[in-house]
Amino acid sequence: MKSLLLVAHGSRREASNEEVRELARRLASRAQPAFSDVSAAFLELAEPSIPDGIVRAVDNGADQVVVLPYFLSAGRHVVTDIPEEVQKAQSARPDADIRTVSYLGSAEAVLDVLLELANGT
Amino acid sequence: MKSLLLVAHGSRREASNEEVRELARRLASRAQPAFSDVSAAFLELAEPSIPDGIVRAVDNGADQVVVLPYFLSAGRHVVTDIPEEVQKAQSARPDADIRTVSYLGSAEAVLDVLLELANGT
Repeated sequence: MKSLLLVAHGSRREASNEEVRELARRLASRAQPAFSDVSAAFLELAEPSIPDGIVRAVDNGADQVVVLPYFLSAGRHVVTDIPEEVQKAQSARPDADIRTVSYLGSAEAVLDVLLELANGT
Repeated sequence: MKSLLLVAHGSRREASNEEVRELARRLASRAQPAFSDVSAAFLELAEPSIPDGIVRAVDNGADQVVVLPYFLSAGRHVVTDIPEEVQKAQSARPDADIRTVSYLGSAEAVLDVLLELANGT
């Protein structure tokens, strides 16, 4: 049983946080059977935090938690902050299998999505 | 002759701005023949500005400039700030055909990219 955690920055604007949670819900139906559940967590300004999101998934029975940074560039948040938050969860649940995959902006397929949007005119 | 302008927020971290410019260069080779050129512009903190990027494309002979917001959520930047910047360019070049397409995060295909990343583990 694998759990996917979509990690976003978090915003003071609650509608933006809700947009990320809604994205996680839409992902959930398409992520099966590889992932039994998908949820959202935030680096700051919104709940749950990254450690809370990971620990919750582990305590709900996930054999593996996959952390996916919903970020466009490899800035400080992706390079330093998110790994630190993930480490807090790993310290809280030392036996848990927690993996962080590459951030959204790193995917070559983003180019195709941009071209589709551009050609929509 | 159409020109594509990839619009990002802009960062104090120059490597992040350069990452966007590099993305525009990579897009350029794949965007032909629909777009004769692809470049990057920034809402703040980096050059060129959005109006400068649009005006440059128009003055270089573009019949149409397509503005593509490289943003994940429909926050204030996408809803208010970018349209205001585009309007400045439209005022400077009243006859230019300038269109803004939907932001990256609005594309359904982003779900597929996220699933690919998640399944890469």
